[in-house]
Amino acid sequence: MRTMKALQYREIGSRPEVVSIPDPQVGPGQVLLKVTAAGVCHSDEFIMSLPAEAYVYGLPLTLGHEGAGIVEAVGEGVSGVKPGDSVAVYGPWGCGRCHMCAQGKENYCLNAEAEGIRPPGLGAPGSMAEYMIVDNERHLVPLGDLDPVKNVSLTDAGLTPYHAIKTSLPKLGAGTTAVVIGAGGLGHVGIQILRAISGATVVALDVSDEKLDLATQVGAQHTFLSNPDAVGAVRDLTGGRGANAVFDFVGVQPTVELASAMAGTEGDVTIVGIGGGALPVGFGRIAYDVAVRTPYWGSRAELIETFDLARAGSVEVEIETYSLDEAPKAYERLHEGKIRGRAVILPNG
Amino acid sequence: MRTMKALQYREIGSRPEVVSIPDPQVGPGQVLLKVTAAGVCHSDEFIMSLPAEAYVYGLPLTLGHEGAGIVEAVGEGVSGVKPGDSVAVYGPWGCGRCHMCAQGKENYCLNAEAEGIRPPGLGAPGSMAEYMIVDNERHLVPLGDLDPVKNVSLTDAGLTPYHAIKTSLPKLGAGTTAVVIGAGGLGHVGIQILRAISGATVVALDVSDEKLDLATQVGAQHTFLSNPDAVGAVRDLTGGRGANAVFDFVGVQPTVELASAMAGTEGDVTIVGIGGGALPVGFGRIAYDVAVRTPYWGSRAELIETFDLARAGSVEVEIETYSLDEAPKAYERLHEGKIRGRAVILPNG
Amino acid sequence: MRTMKALQYREIGSRPEVVSIPDPQVGPGQVLLKVTAAGVCHSDEFIMSLPAEAYVYGLPLTLGHEGAGIVEAVGEGVSGVKPGDSVAVYGPWGCGRCHMCAQGKENYCLNAEAEGIRPPGLGAPGSMAEYMIVDNERHLVPLGDLDPVKNVSLTDAGLTPYHAIKTSLPKLGAGTTAVVIGAGGLGHVGIQILRAISGATVVALDVSDEKLDLATQVGAQHTFLSNPDAVGAVRDLTGGRGANAVFDFVGVQPTVELASAMAGTEGDVTIVGIGGGALPVGFGRIAYDVAVRTPYWGSRAELIETFDLARAGSVEVEIETYSLDEAPKAYERLHEGKIRGRAVILPNG
Amino acid sequence: MRTMKALQYREIGSRPEVVSIPDPQVGPGQVLLKVTAAGVCHSDEFIMSLPAEAYVYGLPLTLGHEGAGIVEAVGEGVSGVKPGDSVAVYGPWGCGRCHMCAQGKENYCLNAEAEGIRPPGLGAPGSMAEYMIVDNERHLVPLGDLDPVKNVSLTDAGLTPYHAIKTSLPKLGAGTTAVVIGAGGLGHVGIQILRAISGATVVALDVSDEKLDLATQVGAQHTFLSNPDAVGAVRDLTGGRGANAVFDFVGVQPTVELASAMAGTEGDVTIVGIGGGALPVGFGRIAYDVAVRTPYWGSRAELIETFDLARAGSVEVEIETYSLDEAPKAYERLHEGKIRGRAVILPNG
Repeated sequence: MRTMKALQYREIGSRPEVVSIPDPQVGPGQVLLKVTAAGVCHSDEFIMSLPAEAYVYGLPLTLGHEGAGIVEAVGEGVSGVKPGDSVAVYGPWGCGRCHMCAQGKENYCLNAEAEGIRPPGLGAPGSMAEYMIVDNERHLVPLGDLDPVKNVSLTDAGLTPYHAIKTSLPKLGAGTTAVVIGAGGLGHVGIQILRAISGATVVALDVSDEKLDLATQVGAQHTFLSNPDAVGAVRDLTGGRGANAVFDFVGVQPTVELASAMAGTEGDVTIVGIGGGALPVGFGRIAYDVAVRTPYWGSRAELIETFDLARAGSVEVEIETYSLDEAPKAYERLHEGKIRGRAVILPNG
Repeated sequence: MRTMKALQYREIGSRPEVVSIPDPQVGPGQVLLKVTAAGVCHSDEFIMSLPAEAYVYGLPLTLGHEGAGIVEAVGEGVSGVKPGDSVAVYGPWGCGRCHMCAQGKENYCLNAEAEGIRPPGLGAPGSMAEYMIVDNERHLVPLGDLDPVKNVSLTDAGLTPYHAIKTSLPKLGAGTTAVVIGAGGLGHVGIQILRAISGATVVALDVSDEKLDLATQVGAQHTFLSNPDAVGAVRDLTGGRGANAVFDFVGVQPTVELASAMAGTEGDVTIVGIGGGALPVGFGRIAYDVAVRTPYWGSRAELIETFDLARAGSVEVEIETYSLDEAPKAYERLHEGKIRGRAVILPNG
Repeated sequence: MRTMKALQYREIGSRPEVVSIPDPQVGPGQVLLKVTAAGVCHSDEFIMSLPAEAYVYGLPLTLGHEGAGIVEAVGEGVSGVKPGDSVAVYGPWGCGRCHMCAQGKENYCLNAEAEGIRPPGLGAPGSMAEYMIVDNERHLVPLGDLDPVKNVSLTDAGLTPYHAIKTSLPKLGAGTTAVVIGAGGLGHVGIQILRAISGATVVALDVSDEKLDLATQVGAQHTFLSNPDAVGAVRDLTGGRGANAVFDFVGVQPTVELASAMAGTEGDVTIVGIGGGALPVGFGRIAYDVAVRTPYWGSRAELIETFDLARAGSVEVEIETYSLDEAPKAYERLHEGKIRGRAVILPNG
Repeated sequence: MRTMKALQYREIGSRPEVVSIPDPQVGPGQVLLKVTAAGVCHSDEFIMSLPAEAYVYGLPLTLGHEGAGIVEAVGEGVSGVKPGDSVAVYGPWGCGRCHMCAQGKENYCLNAEAEGIRPPGLGAPGSMAEYMIVDNERHLVPLGDLDPVKNVSLTDAGLTPYHAIKTSLPKLGAGTTAVVIGAGGLGHVGIQILRAISGATVVALDVSDEKLDLATQVGAQHTFLSNPDAVGAVRDLTGGRGANAVFDFVGVQPTVELASAMAGTEGDVTIVGIGGGALPVGFGRIAYDVAVRTPYWGSRAELIETFDLARAGSVEVEIETYSLDEAPKAYERLHEGKIRGRAVILPNG
């Protein structure tokens, strides 16, 4: 049996480490990928911070829920992809049959929990390995000529803001304003998506000038430091009305409160970041008919659309690359807030 | 100068009283109504409970924001109504010119506050008087043969749930479930609206069996006592998924928490009742992509549509009637939770 | 090798006949059904009327694009259904991977034509046989306790009107009117769907009083003979405005012209019937912003929703049943317009 | 009585001429404008080409349905504008009370015809005069610092494409393609609106290279000569799928057929130009679920949004200016197809 290298989280409270494990074998309906790129995400850090009683992802866990690869082999019954194809992996796997999956919203599968279906890198073996198994060809999106290294992050850092923004799109026509809180991995992609598909003027907030520079560079028309003064600034920009949509990619208590304070009547407040904040919604506490929600990842069709934006040149992810052996260092830099954009691991690089 | 009787709130903390005041005079663009019916609403009680520093409605205040009447006289420039017409009053008056008013959403007028425009009975003199002035003919909806006494409550107790439900309608197709919390004045109308225009199965919750009987009588297919057990009951009814929309017409802390606990992924939680509850929305606290909002009243077109439902026989308000002299008693019974459906005052009855 | 009976169209211009063919064998990812019910449809008749140069469905063709069955065996890699399950077949098979299929809109698959993928009964072997092969488990909807004989027709005669109606649903709220032209197999289901999920008053048109009786029985609130006088009747019912949606389940020239003449501003005209009619759309020929379209079948999620309506008791198909040997007779009666509702074949009955 | 100059159409078949007529007097609820700019439109030409039996606009007719001015005087009961304000006129006047007007869709007023309400320049005296009367202040949109000469055309040449595009916006997200046929007065604005508020790649078709140059200059990403070859070009650009929306600003038979041939499944074909073309819609003649419609002008809120785009710098109209005395010449050049963009008359210039 041949072996391969993989980055695994092996024990509660430990740091992820590079280990050698057996090569995976492809079964009926499955696809084996030679991984070209794997994205590093805050939510990896989040699950590795959980105490044993809250951790539900299995041990050891091969990390990596953002993945791309070259098809190495296909199982029986697979007809839509063939060895040599360059593909990206749709991560939020579902049952494929329920009412949600029948719309491609596998992120909201009604049966996944009961049937023990989990995303790669969040239960199933992930992309931070030389090879990975994808359970069904429907979870692959063809990349064609798109560079997998530059675009792998779109499978989460692109899809998640895309889904959030698409939900708000009917509110983001002519004369509207959208606010992005947090110009990091997801936020700097979100800004580009807003510019590409909405009519909104885009405002970015962050706590560091460096992040605000990145925001400006990727298209934000206004930037402000993320503090209570930003509320007045946004009210001024909007003639007092407030923002039509606020996307909070941080999600701590101060940012959800900022989001609430700057949202205008009939607007949207979308809490994407898993920073633990909670926004109290009630009469007199927020503008009328503002819809507050917390989404999770996105649908299969939305991932295809996200790659369409990349193909059109509308979205480019800022990345830093690391070899698989350097992957633990990438997580350290992420923890320290030092990554500009998104870190990408090259397991076969 | 002739005088008329009116029900006024005259002093902070006092009870409303019947007084004699001068007959109102019609100006250019205005319409004078001889009031046929005026509805009693919880929000009247709410504003009369406010301390001086929070009370912004002016004193003395002629009550009544639900009103209907016969046109008595029209000012210069009025062309769409004429003396003798039976009409209902659209209450949330706005400027008529801003982007919101240009869509008939005068409830969300961008200029009302700055220009000091206030609804009748909530700043302007209201309908609990023999005569009332309506500032512009666009605020009138023709009643035709509809009985003003039976239908006056639709101007708020119909329009408010109608607006809330219409917003959720895209989520209430085949195979869906809607929950109404509170089968009182607004809730018992909301149940009928849901049955008339959505594909949802309707579940009603209330704390009294008598209210649940009313809920069943007006069309609720399932009823449960409003307590934490109801969460499991709704989960069972929906195969574990939760409700597609929950309308909370009470809005106290226990009901907003019930609403949150029983809402399913991508559902709606709409807090209509001004009971002071606040629902904390954040990652892990509520199902993904549930939209939580607090609406206020409704639009002009929605009021027309609400009366269309009455005309089709799809909505009937349960009412108790009172003369103007008995109006203070109606407020007492409201305060004691004794009104079945809605109380209506007949100022010329 | 065992054999089974099947109804086949074997030669251009011939009538369908019952023949004996080899039992089908299940491959990887496929599912073998023992057929419980198979629906007879006008479109079968349509394709059998085509000349050789227009016929693209292959010969011999086992008929039946409406099918239900009991799972007899599953191929390797199938995990969501098991022998003994009662299921219905989603007919418009697609590739499962493209942007349309990723939303479950396999009826509009972008690759089906290029990849030679065809629905059962319209290219692939259909349901009018003792056994049938379904290419992928995602094309099955669990029936549970629903009677397959009474409900098999919903896979087309339910799904097709459901899809058409769902598209128009935003236009069918309070105070609106929907017209159904043709109260036959699809139309009598369409009427029930409109009553169940929309706020519209439902008007039915047909050329026979018997069909209008069926329309009334399943919920139409008004019925008229389908002739030019109906235009005035619908204008009268709607205060001159015209209908908000017209569904033409016949689709001949006179009916598409009726549909156009009775549609009001911003309404919908949906031509479902393949009767060869063509509606000229241009300035001055139809009310402003009426959307005219011709849909085809529906999506996977919509089929699940259609069965939800049956489960709730909101939709019941009028059926006549036939054994497989009697199937040719069912097509004759269909041709003569004698079927009340829908004909269903019981291949194992 | 003072007099003013006005451009009038005085006799069927004649050419418009400059005449002297009495100054208009302002009545209750009305506003008197000193006209700053008046736009020349194809539809003026269209109505002047009608035979007597089809002409319903009254004679003599002061032309000009695109208008802007400075408020000169206000009638009794007008409170939202005051002398000196710079405003634009919303042209499609309605009753202000019906269900359509209650949503600001006065272009689709249910009572206008019965009550004899007509737009300025199309029945009521128009903007091609030194002064004009606006019947109600709600028909005015404040211009503030926006140049009335450069922006007056937005009241029709901006609003009409804006309304058409906004209707299609849900179909114009990431990875989509929109086609504009005719890069003239409306089309060159439509291209800019599409770039500003949609995610679509914009393709422009016209018969002259000069118009295609203008299309490119205002943002079209691809241009083709408007002939049958364009169908293949658009199919190639879209990977065979066809366009998600086609806006035909010409509307002759060849262009509506082009539009139909290049529209993809679930797309939109919107016939805006009143060129007399009619598109036959029926099974097999156009892609499935393409919605074909003919809109008319737009709503009050949409006009506000159109000016928001101008204010943001997203839309600029190409104009040629003329004095009132030169106005007849502007119509001649329009007739000869020589206007680049839009002609604007300065009645007080």
